[in-house]
Amino acid sequence: MATDTRARMLETTARLLQHRGYHGTPLSDILRESGAPRGSLYFHFPGGKEQLAIEATRAGIEETTSMLREILAAADDPARGARAFVEAAAGIMGESGYTFGCPVAPVILDAHANIPELADLCRRAFEEWTGVLTGAFTQAGILPERASALALLVCASLEGGMLVSRAYRETEPMQTLAIEIESAIRSAMPQHKTRRTLPARR
Amino acid sequence: MATDTRARMLETTARLLQHRGYHGTPLSDILRESGAPRGSLYFHFPGGKEQLAIEATRAGIEETTSMLREILAAADDPARGARAFVEAAAGIMGESGYTFGCPVAPVILDAHANIPELADLCRRAFEEWTGVLTGAFTQAGILPERASALALLVCASLEGGMLVSRAYRETEPMQTLAIEIESAIRSAMPQHKTRRTLPARR
Repeated sequence: MATDTRARMLETTARLLQHRGYHGTPLSDILRESGAPRGSLYFHFPGGKEQLAIEATRAGIEETTSMLREILAAADDPARGARAFVEAAAGIMGESGYTFGCPVAPVILDAHANIPELADLCRRAFEEWTGVLTGAFTQAGILPERASALALLVCASLEGGMLVSRAYRETEPMQTLAIEIESAIRSAMPQHKTRRTLPARR
Repeated sequence: MATDTRARMLETTARLLQHRGYHGTPLSDILRESGAPRGSLYFHFPGGKEQLAIEATRAGIEETTSMLREILAAADDPARGARAFVEAAAGIMGESGYTFGCPVAPVILDAHANIPELADLCRRAFEEWTGVLTGAFTQAGILPERASALALLVCASLEGGMLVSRAYRETEPMQTLAIEIESAIRSAMPQHKTRRTLPARR
């Protein structure tokens, strides 16, 4: 029961942070929306709102990393995998009425400068996601430097795509980006180049 | 003198919004940092903080649009122009100690849902920027649908790139993205395709 309360408080914090940012999420809202009594706040989170934000962000990052790994593992190739990852994010955004977003974007924009542990967490999140993607791209034969640049392109355009989709309240921009991303990665894959420049079956 | 105060209040609002979001920017900070007396707030901005945010966001969008048009007009081709635009944004971010960002990103993340006029403004900003880019790309011979997808890729990866750069406090991710963006646009330009698939001078 105690851990239920703790989990519910983290879930509520994550949702409110992604929807309204750090400064837009007062502790009183977290308590009200999670139905947690004020006494349980400092029992579970002696560091208060800062600790809640750090732990909720960490959980969101881990969830995103698992989702990324699973989708890449299930895809035929990493170009298709990156596309599927963007499409999955679009689906979740649409289903949540555009309240779901990246677990790190809002806190980077409005809070991380003042909370060093949150800043570190956000940096490490991008390192981890670009690292996973870079690994998948190099395995598909893309040279490491290019693979790392494309991994950054996937992460950046996904972040920006979620922002644009939220502004429009439409998933269509993300669907379009997903196709462009697949195409950028595919054209960097060696089989693709071979197919293009050496039409062997002619 | 009165208009100086007005302009100063808008500049301060823009800077604080980009740095800390809507909810992280209390009116008292805008007054203190702009050195404006409280009396002048409701004289210049009868709508209070909401009006300040709307006008500051509108000014930021116009400035960005002008910068985009100028950079595209000065570039040899739109692939180079889009790259230069991302590099210019990187330069401004670095010079501002990573407090400068997109004029619409923070309000989209934490405020626009509750202020319909701000939401409209953000949507129209993306429409305008992608429209300017789409125009430049079609002029370079890219088909309209692809041109519009690439315009979205530029805007989204620039938004996401600013976010990543802010997390790292480094402009390097944006420099890398600028090159990837140029390459994605160039490979969609017809001259490029012709050069690749029909090596006429062989």
